[in-house]
Amino acid sequence: MKKIALLATGGTIASLSSENGLAPAINAEQLLHYCPRLKKNYQILVRDVFSLDSSNIQPEEWQILAKHVKEVADEVDGVVITHGTDTMAYTAAALSFLLLCISKPVVLTGSQLSIAAPFSDAPGNIEEAFIAAATLPAGVFIAFHHQIILGTRAVKMRTLSFDAFASINASPVGYFDAEGLHLSLPNEEQTVAQPKALGDSVDSRVFLLKLVPGTNPEIFRHLIETGYQGLVLECFGLGGLHYIRRNLVDSMKELSQKGIVTMVTTQCMYEKADFSIYEVGHAFLGLPNVYGAHDMTSEAAVAKLMWALGDRENRLQYLRTPLCYEMMV
Amino acid sequence: MKKIALLATGGTIASLSSENGLAPAINAEQLLHYCPRLKKNYQILVRDVFSLDSSNIQPEEWQILAKHVKEVADEVDGVVITHGTDTMAYTAAALSFLLLCISKPVVLTGSQLSIAAPFSDAPGNIEEAFIAAATLPAGVFIAFHHQIILGTRAVKMRTLSFDAFASINASPVGYFDAEGLHLSLPNEEQTVAQPKALGDSVDSRVFLLKLVPGTNPEIFRHLIETGYQGLVLECFGLGGLHYIRRNLVDSMKELSQKGIVTMVTTQCMYEKADFSIYEVGHAFLGLPNVYGAHDMTSEAAVAKLMWALGDRENRLQYLRTPLCYEMMV
Repeated sequence: MKKIALLATGGTIASLSSENGLAPAINAEQLLHYCPRLKKNYQILVRDVFSLDSSNIQPEEWQILAKHVKEVADEVDGVVITHGTDTMAYTAAALSFLLLCISKPVVLTGSQLSIAAPFSDAPGNIEEAFIAAATLPAGVFIAFHHQIILGTRAVKMRTLSFDAFASINASPVGYFDAEGLHLSLPNEEQTVAQPKALGDSVDSRVFLLKLVPGTNPEIFRHLIETGYQGLVLECFGLGGLHYIRRNLVDSMKELSQKGIVTMVTTQCMYEKADFSIYEVGHAFLGLPNVYGAHDMTSEAAVAKLMWALGDRENRLQYLRTPLCYEMMV
Repeated sequence: MKKIALLATGGTIASLSSENGLAPAINAEQLLHYCPRLKKNYQILVRDVFSLDSSNIQPEEWQILAKHVKEVADEVDGVVITHGTDTMAYTAAALSFLLLCISKPVVLTGSQLSIAAPFSDAPGNIEEAFIAAATLPAGVFIAFHHQIILGTRAVKMRTLSFDAFASINASPVGYFDAEGLHLSLPNEEQTVAQPKALGDSVDSRVFLLKLVPGTNPEIFRHLIETGYQGLVLECFGLGGLHYIRRNLVDSMKELSQKGIVTMVTTQCMYEKADFSIYEVGHAFLGLPNVYGAHDMTSEAAVAKLMWALGDRENRLQYLRTPLCYEMMV
């Protein structure tokens, strides 16, 4: 019988109605009451890590959660984390970097309805997450609505439907049907040298700027004055930004000179950013402290940049290198 | 023979290689050389409005473009606008509001490859845009890769593939196959009273804030100090934001008190924002100057808010009301 750790963090899955709307109220042991088959098939270690709406899960919580996973990993065959859906993709990406050397599978799941609600998707998602945690190789994954997605490739796409998550720019690594779990793991191992320094440090001083037509360059001054260390810039298309009337290219140059690390990504959901193609993106080429995010999701870019800035000396070099399937270069 | 106006604005479709990458260089008349069938089937009025990479098309250009459309609309049966893909969804949304009372169809198109490039999608897209402009009812649309999308519902989803645009939270209003254009227009007319004051005014002092875990509330102070008039807030999921350690709820309250108008939307691509469901969103209920964006795209929310703020007295009331299929309430 496999041994699985269940770490509960709150979220819709653990919510009950209150006067002010849904709020987390159900603990890990109570979650298991709604999944009566699990205790027959697994030896389960339960921990209540938080009881938070995932909108409140921030880099500090990522670090605590990573610590809990490391504490239990040696005792179990796999780890399941129940988590709100709102920021689950960010947490999964962050854990992917914080747990690069983890030796067990770590599977996040959640649900669109409370486990106590009629026709809830929660019991099914938890059962599939347990199967994934007992089966997958080491790494961080999301199990949701019959799909297994790499932790660095998930995006919450839908606010209501049960198939809330999609795997972006990479195929899901598994899916469930009536025969069970079908795996299609990535062909290639990430072959690069793994970073040596693997502390829990994360620098949350990263801003995400999604451009709109007319974005005022003053925002770049604010980033410098407030002490931000990093910027994920969601450009237009392959990496475009405006420079007539409001010159964002000059702003980027100033940011670069100040040592603020920028990852250039696209606000398009699918496919890569590549600022080498258009004249409008050529201004970026060769600027120090500017990195292309290639086909990374914004969630993964934010998490990787916060992780890299948490130990600049040892980790910044990996902004050009895929570490856990987060990008194709 | 139908008469169609072709307004060219630059974009990839009109680009040629330069030393610094692709840049706009082909004018409207030259575009037509690549579409030899068009002159046989349509009487065409050409205008070169801009020669810009669409990353440089900003609210000032929206106003100029709207003026050109109004100038030619009476002379023609329909208007085709060639435009870069990067900000086409923003321009289409903005024109939808700036041209609410237009009596002719206005169809934007563009391409993923220059019209001069081998296997370019440009000639096909232009031909389909002409058919759409000769066929559709009045309104603003995007024609791209065999689809016709409402101007307020388009999002650029892909940086490279030919099917770059998707219609979000509304079906496409038409598609092309070998039989031609099949229309499935919305069943209901937008029945609300149309705004009376229809000037070209737009207020570009709108910021788009896409939250990440750990977003620093200082950004709200920056918005107040810089004189922003509006904010489109891309929350988590149905409308979540964090309030432990970094209290964005208090920041929203301060913004509301300062009279800055906020539209609350979701960073999920599909489905609506609804901050009434979770405790974490209840803080918004009843705050003055805060509006739910329901199922609007961020592109449409930004454009509608800039438009509404361009004439607060006459237009702000319409933030709760669908005007051109931009939202379902």
